[in-house]
Amino acid sequence: MRVAASSTRNPERSREKILLAAFKEFAAKGFAGARVDTIARRASINKRMLYHYFGDKEALFREVMRRKMAERQAWGLATPDSPSESLPYWFDLACKDKGWVRLLEWEALQFGEGRLIDEERRRISATAAVKRILRRQSFGHLSAEFEASQILLAMLALTWFPVAFPQLTKLITGKVASDEDFLREQRDFLRRFAKAFESDTVSNGRAGDVRKEALNSNESD
Amino acid sequence: MRVAASSTRNPERSREKILLAAFKEFAAKGFAGARVDTIARRASINKRMLYHYFGDKEALFREVMRRKMAERQAWGLATPDSPSESLPYWFDLACKDKGWVRLLEWEALQFGEGRLIDEERRRISATAAVKRILRRQSFGHLSAEFEASQILLAMLALTWFPVAFPQLTKLITGKVASDEDFLREQRDFLRRFAKAFESDTVSNGRAGDVRKEALNSNESD
Repeated sequence: MRVAASSTRNPERSREKILLAAFKEFAAKGFAGARVDTIARRASINKRMLYHYFGDKEALFREVMRRKMAERQAWGLATPDSPSESLPYWFDLACKDKGWVRLLEWEALQFGEGRLIDEERRRISATAAVKRILRRQSFGHLSAEFEASQILLAMLALTWFPVAFPQLTKLITGKVASDEDFLREQRDFLRRFAKAFESDTVSNGRAGDVRKEALNSNESD
Repeated sequence: MRVAASSTRNPERSREKILLAAFKEFAAKGFAGARVDTIARRASINKRMLYHYFGDKEALFREVMRRKMAERQAWGLATPDSPSESLPYWFDLACKDKGWVRLLEWEALQFGEGRLIDEERRRISATAAVKRILRRQSFGHLSAEFEASQILLAMLALTWFPVAFPQLTKLITGKVASDEDFLREQRDFLRRFAKAFESDTVSNGRAGDVRKEALNSNESD
């Protein structure tokens, strides 16, 4: 495919602009509802050029997901060990990254239990997140009473739910989910509720059921 | 408006068929995406007839929500007092009522923090649910350490999240959310995790911080 010289002058910058516009469009309307026309217009780029860079809408979505996952993985690695700090931390991330929560909500509605776009790579990323929980269990930061995958799901649930269902947050608490009062109260709740995830080792101050076998992995955290 | 005799023969049955078809359509596509044409076709009813019964799409949505909320309120009243039973119970309800979870997910995406359809009535219903939590706190079934609204939000989060985000459940646990193995493990997890919501009164077997003032309400539970 031949490409006009003006558009290739700064291909890296063009790609960035497209990915940013695409993330916004996918978060606003979901994969099915997103329009490549709209993305091209917002990125001030010719639609043929966009196809030249990314192939089709699915390939563009895949790239958006990969970027976002890389960014979120970095945040995941910076998660504090103690649940009383990690729960408020994850909650703050969900609040500042509402677009990601929305995007996954669209995906839940449109793909459900079916095959996901880029599923293999995403499974690898989820497995790494479970391993980080396992590691914290083995060091006694998190309770070994529950499966690591169940802890991860429960921590996501508690920290994402108010962002994923802002209308329920409003109906139940009487406060808008982005209201500073609500944010402070929810952080405080999570900090105190976190003891549910704490290991008895920590809360009783004695050496406990430390599962060293959980570390039979070379994954560096 | 004149109405054909054939369609009015059993108006109650026609209304039921419309509401059932409308719930399915709203759960499948959300308020914005739902088509009144599709609802009328699925209910085997003439579209003019549908408008005659329910007014417009918004009025139909409101009626669907009210029906569903009445049904769910009955389920809410039957919630066991102990969190080790109520969490698995709520999880089972979410699993058997996926359409409702989907419908609220659509609403979250489309209405967010904005004004909801039938918001006043829904706030009343949410307030009644918070009062039921308060009542359980006052009787020592639930911890008085947290705000009732925070307990409600957290219980919904833990029990709805795997249903609301089936793709994350699959990526994290390696199991499909409707898989019998997953359901059993999740119920078991919730039963054990429930102690996070238990009052010290219960777990330590002593009379504790019973907040009788919570009962200054005439609401019968």
